[in-house]
Amino acid sequence: MKAMVYHGPGEKSWQDVPDAKVQDPTDVVVRVDTTTLCGTDLHILHGDVAAVTDGRILGHEAVGTVVEVGSAVTGFAVGDRVLVPAITKCGRCTFCQRGMPSHCQTVGGIGWILGHLIDGTQAELVRVPYADTSLYTVPAHVTNEQAIFLADSLPTGYEVGVLAGQVRPGNTVAVVGAGAVGLSAVLTTGLWGASKVIAIDTNKFRLEKSIEFGATDSVEAGPDARADVLALTDGLGVDVAIEAVGYPETLLLAASLVRPGGTIANVGVHGVPVELPMHEMWIQNVTLTMGLVDTVSIPTLLTMVASGKIPAEKMGTHTFTYDQMDQAYDVFANAASNLALKMVINQG
Amino acid sequence: MKAMVYHGPGEKSWQDVPDAKVQDPTDVVVRVDTTTLCGTDLHILHGDVAAVTDGRILGHEAVGTVVEVGSAVTGFAVGDRVLVPAITKCGRCTFCQRGMPSHCQTVGGIGWILGHLIDGTQAELVRVPYADTSLYTVPAHVTNEQAIFLADSLPTGYEVGVLAGQVRPGNTVAVVGAGAVGLSAVLTTGLWGASKVIAIDTNKFRLEKSIEFGATDSVEAGPDARADVLALTDGLGVDVAIEAVGYPETLLLAASLVRPGGTIANVGVHGVPVELPMHEMWIQNVTLTMGLVDTVSIPTLLTMVASGKIPAEKMGTHTFTYDQMDQAYDVFANAASNLALKMVINQG
Amino acid sequence: MKAMVYHGPGEKSWQDVPDAKVQDPTDVVVRVDTTTLCGTDLHILHGDVAAVTDGRILGHEAVGTVVEVGSAVTGFAVGDRVLVPAITKCGRCTFCQRGMPSHCQTVGGIGWILGHLIDGTQAELVRVPYADTSLYTVPAHVTNEQAIFLADSLPTGYEVGVLAGQVRPGNTVAVVGAGAVGLSAVLTTGLWGASKVIAIDTNKFRLEKSIEFGATDSVEAGPDARADVLALTDGLGVDVAIEAVGYPETLLLAASLVRPGGTIANVGVHGVPVELPMHEMWIQNVTLTMGLVDTVSIPTLLTMVASGKIPAEKMGTHTFTYDQMDQAYDVFANAASNLALKMVINQG
Amino acid sequence: MKAMVYHGPGEKSWQDVPDAKVQDPTDVVVRVDTTTLCGTDLHILHGDVAAVTDGRILGHEAVGTVVEVGSAVTGFAVGDRVLVPAITKCGRCTFCQRGMPSHCQTVGGIGWILGHLIDGTQAELVRVPYADTSLYTVPAHVTNEQAIFLADSLPTGYEVGVLAGQVRPGNTVAVVGAGAVGLSAVLTTGLWGASKVIAIDTNKFRLEKSIEFGATDSVEAGPDARADVLALTDGLGVDVAIEAVGYPETLLLAASLVRPGGTIANVGVHGVPVELPMHEMWIQNVTLTMGLVDTVSIPTLLTMVASGKIPAEKMGTHTFTYDQMDQAYDVFANAASNLALKMVINQG
Repeated sequence: MKAMVYHGPGEKSWQDVPDAKVQDPTDVVVRVDTTTLCGTDLHILHGDVAAVTDGRILGHEAVGTVVEVGSAVTGFAVGDRVLVPAITKCGRCTFCQRGMPSHCQTVGGIGWILGHLIDGTQAELVRVPYADTSLYTVPAHVTNEQAIFLADSLPTGYEVGVLAGQVRPGNTVAVVGAGAVGLSAVLTTGLWGASKVIAIDTNKFRLEKSIEFGATDSVEAGPDARADVLALTDGLGVDVAIEAVGYPETLLLAASLVRPGGTIANVGVHGVPVELPMHEMWIQNVTLTMGLVDTVSIPTLLTMVASGKIPAEKMGTHTFTYDQMDQAYDVFANAASNLALKMVINQG
Repeated sequence: MKAMVYHGPGEKSWQDVPDAKVQDPTDVVVRVDTTTLCGTDLHILHGDVAAVTDGRILGHEAVGTVVEVGSAVTGFAVGDRVLVPAITKCGRCTFCQRGMPSHCQTVGGIGWILGHLIDGTQAELVRVPYADTSLYTVPAHVTNEQAIFLADSLPTGYEVGVLAGQVRPGNTVAVVGAGAVGLSAVLTTGLWGASKVIAIDTNKFRLEKSIEFGATDSVEAGPDARADVLALTDGLGVDVAIEAVGYPETLLLAASLVRPGGTIANVGVHGVPVELPMHEMWIQNVTLTMGLVDTVSIPTLLTMVASGKIPAEKMGTHTFTYDQMDQAYDVFANAASNLALKMVINQG
Repeated sequence: MKAMVYHGPGEKSWQDVPDAKVQDPTDVVVRVDTTTLCGTDLHILHGDVAAVTDGRILGHEAVGTVVEVGSAVTGFAVGDRVLVPAITKCGRCTFCQRGMPSHCQTVGGIGWILGHLIDGTQAELVRVPYADTSLYTVPAHVTNEQAIFLADSLPTGYEVGVLAGQVRPGNTVAVVGAGAVGLSAVLTTGLWGASKVIAIDTNKFRLEKSIEFGATDSVEAGPDARADVLALTDGLGVDVAIEAVGYPETLLLAASLVRPGGTIANVGVHGVPVELPMHEMWIQNVTLTMGLVDTVSIPTLLTMVASGKIPAEKMGTHTFTYDQMDQAYDVFANAASNLALKMVINQG
Repeated sequence: MKAMVYHGPGEKSWQDVPDAKVQDPTDVVVRVDTTTLCGTDLHILHGDVAAVTDGRILGHEAVGTVVEVGSAVTGFAVGDRVLVPAITKCGRCTFCQRGMPSHCQTVGGIGWILGHLIDGTQAELVRVPYADTSLYTVPAHVTNEQAIFLADSLPTGYEVGVLAGQVRPGNTVAVVGAGAVGLSAVLTTGLWGASKVIAIDTNKFRLEKSIEFGATDSVEAGPDARADVLALTDGLGVDVAIEAVGYPETLLLAASLVRPGGTIANVGVHGVPVELPMHEMWIQNVTLTMGLVDTVSIPTLLTMVASGKIPAEKMGTHTFTYDQMDQAYDVFANAASNLALKMVINQG
């Protein structure tokens, strides 16, 4: 089969590899009908993720069709259309039992193994371990384009941003960074009744998108951003500030926007330490949350997508076929300048 | 009346001042029967709290007797025995309504005003604004020695440590720093069913006290502390780490002790920024909380003290009379070496 | 002043009475600009509410202007435009402190005293006790017609229906009874991300209104109602069933619609006992909630009305002036046949 | 192997049957080292549980040793000492994912299948389906006598009583019925910091046991019970009333004990409808919960038993060997008069 294989920092190739097949009785193999690219794939290519080694097939997001089923799998059959989420989970370890499979102890201490510790979804076929507890059936009237972003970016913005941030009816919310994940937070704040959603970014296209996705206000990032946000509240700041970039300055900006008693939900992936002004913050009764997505909100999000209440497909700005995989990477690598959010890549 | 008056950094005097009296219809005046000293009083004396100015009467903790009542006060009468908590609250601003009077907008944007923005409790009499919503009646069979620490240190350890940390039945908890506030957390983790409570300190006396107060294990602070704590868990760390010191190194220690999905509850008052290893922490699904006490848990704590389930009086290691106020400060300023936790100071 | 006075079962009169005035330092007097009628007023007229005695001024909902302020009131001034909610609260008793002023021990063991235990709002002036903790400022750009239903019916549907029912994102919700309170629940389920909202009533006008107010489906009450609702779910029933009528058969219908693990939120006022099939229900892991409104959600609802996310004014189907008070009662007494939901009655 | 087989109402026999063996790849077979009897077994014998048919092996509680493992089982191996809980769960259906396997759709729409829909634990061997998600490892230093009651009665009192009742620190709790399940609630209220626990029963032995198990007060059931309980509170009743009997009068007693805003947690198995005074209750802001145990609290309870904080073994008042199985049933059938709570039955 064809697959996108990592060959060390800066090196990847779309090449022939042996077909994926069932190895354990709890595996299934899925024919990937639609996949996409994630910012994490770019981090891997930059050599930032040491656990990914030469020869690994990339990708951790897919919608596809079950083509082979292990002997112990009872919940899925050949021909089922399924969502393959970024997180694989055993369903029975302490972490899975409490709804935190991001740290599933059985699959590797971390639930993100596809395209990381085992071969991933940017391929014609992908093997999914612990299929019964990891896969989700896609309802018949939900399209691949609607479902694909539920594999990772939408639940990331929702779980790590909106849920961890504890958005509640009537709340004001600021989202620092209006890329795919920040916009996923914007798109789902309405599920918890936010009254005001303020998107902050340097990029005009993204700010426009944020309004289209449900933000009530947009603010250009820069020295005045804090003052602009305070002016949009009662002067005390927002209830919840969601950080969706991953730099010290964006986290500090988010922290500076939140009112006493509020929550800073860090979604961004950080590469360096952050000097937090604890001498000012300790008295503010604020909460700082952070984490990897669990993807346990997928059933809720699928329901909302199916009922037409979340237009997830709007996240897909560009569509490619499998033989354009390299082009898809090129466009995505310069997402902002290409007016791109997420790629839809169909095997066809 | 006599009162302990602040006169700038390093200067205080136990001196005659005009009697406290009712100024607003919602005030009461309380004769202070018992007061105590707080670490914050020492910070003030060091000149660390700019809002406290020359001439301010110190103290924000008292048990006493109502001696004068404003015309609008309906919940208290002359002769009532009351607890004067560290936090004064209007009861009606947004923050009070959501149970966060630490940021009461009416009394000053911060609920801690006694001995800070207005005259405090280290005096024969103290004026308490918004008495109806701020004071608590002390049940007849609860002694002053049992009640006095509910004014600040016990609710601080409980609310900012145990409640913010979300201790739940079966949890393992580490408490970094076994001074009065850390021990207050130790004393109240049982209210939420902690299975293991590990106290960490450099001071032997405090570690012994921690076991007496309900810790299941004690660990000496130092280079091996983290390894010692991990060895007491399943190797992944504790569910909740409570920081009760206020230095970068103690907060970083607390952060290093917590398992994926756990909570770091910062109780310590910080004087400088803290460099947080966000590049390692972002993926850990941890939560960092911080804040000033609200004292809204006082009814619960009074109930537990009255029912004999929390031996709050054990926190009082030294007893003084009002004419020994300076000595009380001297002992408390060197608490660790004096084997001291909290001072009980009676007007007699 | 003019007021609507109760004179025993079946008897009321719009008559001259002495002007309301401040009695206690915590009172204010409000000039009623807009009031409305509540189903409870009809219950009183039927003689169903024993505590209401001859001579009592009816009404517990108003938007108006402060005209007199007690000496202890600090949060409101003459000229302020305020919402007078159905619940009066001291703000400091155990029940108020935990956000349940429906049982405020200070004002009478029950928070609903206006038009019940003291004179009410269907008058030119109304005295409001504990004004600082009971009244709410109406934002400048919120009209009287938008604010008036936040005094009782909207928070009742929201708090006793949606909040008590614990509606969560993705949930299916059935609302039994699409009168003013049931429709208030329909109008606010979106604050918690319901995916499907099914309104059930015998009245066609109300079912049409329910769709206009945000229901996704409407079902005619009758022998097939349960089957119709199950057909709209996965066959197991809804997550939350809200009862907004108050009869045994409607509560039993609601109970029959809920899936295992679901909640039945009773909002209706019941006049007789209800035989609950506990032999079938005990194993279903369902929860049955019930209660009087607390009106503590008013700040949230005002925010949502102000931001345009809840069109509360749509509840007002008929408008009257004060000299048409009797006509307003006549129309409201036959609300269903008059295609009426709520009356808006302006003093002018 | 030997097993206790049901042969229709009133008929059971301890007889030879074919050995249990693995049927599906997700099964294990456990050698039952210790089992016990449940009130439900008596209900079955009375013919009250229609789904149990002639030939069914009874029992749904066991501690034992794994002797055979299906090909898909990865979490357990031959020789492991395990707890077999009353609930079997697939771990992946909607109900299991939200922590409510009592209604696992995969194993039969109800999680209680052992000794009900499939053969049970009162046998030398038992087949356990979905072993990876259903079984729990027993820590080495926890004895069979400590672990056996965690299979059903302890989690039932805890989950359906204490957790559903939302007991919180400082709460007063009444437990109506001090049999094994009521006492399990008594034993676990401390995990949530109850300040006062009042046990109510007609049986003196059980009331004495309740004090031994942690109740602060005991009240004899009868016409004065309500007055006695109110006298032990502030006159308004308890925060949480747990019903652990299953008759209309005991549920109505529980409902009459609860203060406004409180919770009635029904644990009892009811055989007939209950006429609930909704005309009095609707205004009380109370919540009524009910349900079958999920056994998802077993990890927490095992931790608390292992740490010595819950003396679960005290529940076992009588010990038998497998050849005394009939005697065990005889003693248990007259538990109250035999001063019996739970039977410990060892295979030896």
